[in-house]
Amino acid sequence: MTTPAYFGEDEFLALLRERVATLPPRPEIALGIGDDAAVLRRIANAIVTTDMLLDGIDFVVAECGAERAGRKALTKNLSDLAAMGALPIAAFVSVALPPATTREFASRFLDGLCAAAREFECAIAGGDTKRSPRGLVVNVTLIGAPAHDHILTRSGGRPGDVLVVSGPLGGSILGHHLDFTPRLAAGAAFARRGATAVIDLSDGLARDLPLLAAASGCGAELDAASIPIAAAAHELARSSGRSALDHALDDGEDYELLVALPHEVLAAITSEPSLAGTTIIGRLVADPGVTLVRDGHREPLARGGFRHHFEGGDRER
Amino acid sequence: MTTPAYFGEDEFLALLRERVATLPPRPEIALGIGDDAAVLRRIANAIVTTDMLLDGIDFVVAECGAERAGRKALTKNLSDLAAMGALPIAAFVSVALPPATTREFASRFLDGLCAAAREFECAIAGGDTKRSPRGLVVNVTLIGAPAHDHILTRSGGRPGDVLVVSGPLGGSILGHHLDFTPRLAAGAAFARRGATAVIDLSDGLARDLPLLAAASGCGAELDAASIPIAAAAHELARSSGRSALDHALDDGEDYELLVALPHEVLAAITSEPSLAGTTIIGRLVADPGVTLVRDGHREPLARGGFRHHFEGGDRER
Repeated sequence: MTTPAYFGEDEFLALLRERVATLPPRPEIALGIGDDAAVLRRIANAIVTTDMLLDGIDFVVAECGAERAGRKALTKNLSDLAAMGALPIAAFVSVALPPATTREFASRFLDGLCAAAREFECAIAGGDTKRSPRGLVVNVTLIGAPAHDHILTRSGGRPGDVLVVSGPLGGSILGHHLDFTPRLAAGAAFARRGATAVIDLSDGLARDLPLLAAASGCGAELDAASIPIAAAAHELARSSGRSALDHALDDGEDYELLVALPHEVLAAITSEPSLAGTTIIGRLVADPGVTLVRDGHREPLARGGFRHHFEGGDRER
Repeated sequence: MTTPAYFGEDEFLALLRERVATLPPRPEIALGIGDDAAVLRRIANAIVTTDMLLDGIDFVVAECGAERAGRKALTKNLSDLAAMGALPIAAFVSVALPPATTREFASRFLDGLCAAAREFECAIAGGDTKRSPRGLVVNVTLIGAPAHDHILTRSGGRPGDVLVVSGPLGGSILGHHLDFTPRLAAGAAFARRGATAVIDLSDGLARDLPLLAAASGCGAELDAASIPIAAAAHELARSSGRSALDHALDDGEDYELLVALPHEVLAAITSEPSLAGTTIIGRLVADPGVTLVRDGHREPLARGGFRHHFEGGDRER
């Protein structure tokens, strides 16, 4: 019996360079992988986001496999760009390889990473490869550019704006947290149509809506009956002792966009194919605080105690 | 007896925002920490580098303390910018906090990080905070801009160029790998003076010189007697059974610049105060391969088997 050979940093880097070379070139990349740093040109406004993903926190590689881990490392960041109304240009990928890394493991990880890069037209322009004392750690920094003149933030919402979400919420632990589609097309369309504020729902509506409202200097009202609930949230509710609505409010990792829109643009939204899944769920109001309106009763929205599915927590900033 | 409370992601983020607010503002940062992504303006050519640092690989936090770990996370990346002839604009800092993180630990880590940011005039414009299943993990992505029109790479060297280093080499494990000064001023001066190729010495001269030579389509000759040897390399040699020269060639983490220069600019180099420590150590040649000239004998340079000081390895790309 033989143990598969450890696939080290040099081998990983060689395989990564081989894979990255098959991605379509981007004119903004004057110098990519292979020097002390990369050089990017022609970016008037750089939109930059970064996320670290760890085995045991953001995925359990032994269960989901390296390919889905590689995909999520990129798509989680792409979701942040989507929330800015931006499209990706280049990713910088740091990987700490676990001690038991094999060629097979590395190859599957790169399959997932590069398939997502190809699908969402993102180059991979640099990174760092390390050996990890324990599990897989991946950090991706993404640089993008606004899809339109208007850069979306969390802070532009105004009282009276309608709140919409780009898709159903809750139950992401059943698979969606790995396999979601970042809402880049929707984010670009919302920017073009005049959205005033956007956040991506990574920590759950009950946690992220108060962030958007507070950043916009507003409060918010949420219509419980309007919140689109994912099938996975209903499925979880059958055994969790919590309601499907609670799962939709608190689960996190939906990676849908929560968007504030002036009333006058609503009609245009419904005619946009990339915004087909958009649902109105409430509105921004002048008074601070977030209210849940359920069966005619008004109650303060409990701020969900979102923790990542596994061991830890996550706070984007 | 009480156990110090775990200092979680929210608390860390609040403390980080407080510290970052005390750094001098940078006009390029249109939107910093606090949204789904940052927005950077006015960067015609973005120079981008990223490095992941892990407890047990790049430092042993229990020995060196959190402050030096925080400093190194930034300075290691700054050294990569220096090698491009670039100066920093903004850092994006992802941190996975170990389970035993206290307020004291977090505060010291931020002391080191922010002191380096202040010293080298780098903003902190975003990041990510996670809980780590084990030790501290930090990833920094740095975005900079060329100090002059000329962007330095590894690949512009020509046969006949003189090779210089910016300071003495070897023995970094005794402290230099934590406390080095990234050669930003020297990198900018080399760019202005017409250097043709530069690499930062992170993996050791014996490993990094062949990279520069190969990227430039050249070979190289190294004069053993000219290589500046750090006092720490001599100190190590007393007990290691290896020569001080071997330490200077192989130890790695020198974070000095290795630079190829046309002959005609050499005179100007000696008049530049920021290049005071510059030493000529050899030359680029037309034939491939790197030769060490020692006591009149010529031998192929053994490519140092650099491993990081502790458990693992590191390959920048």
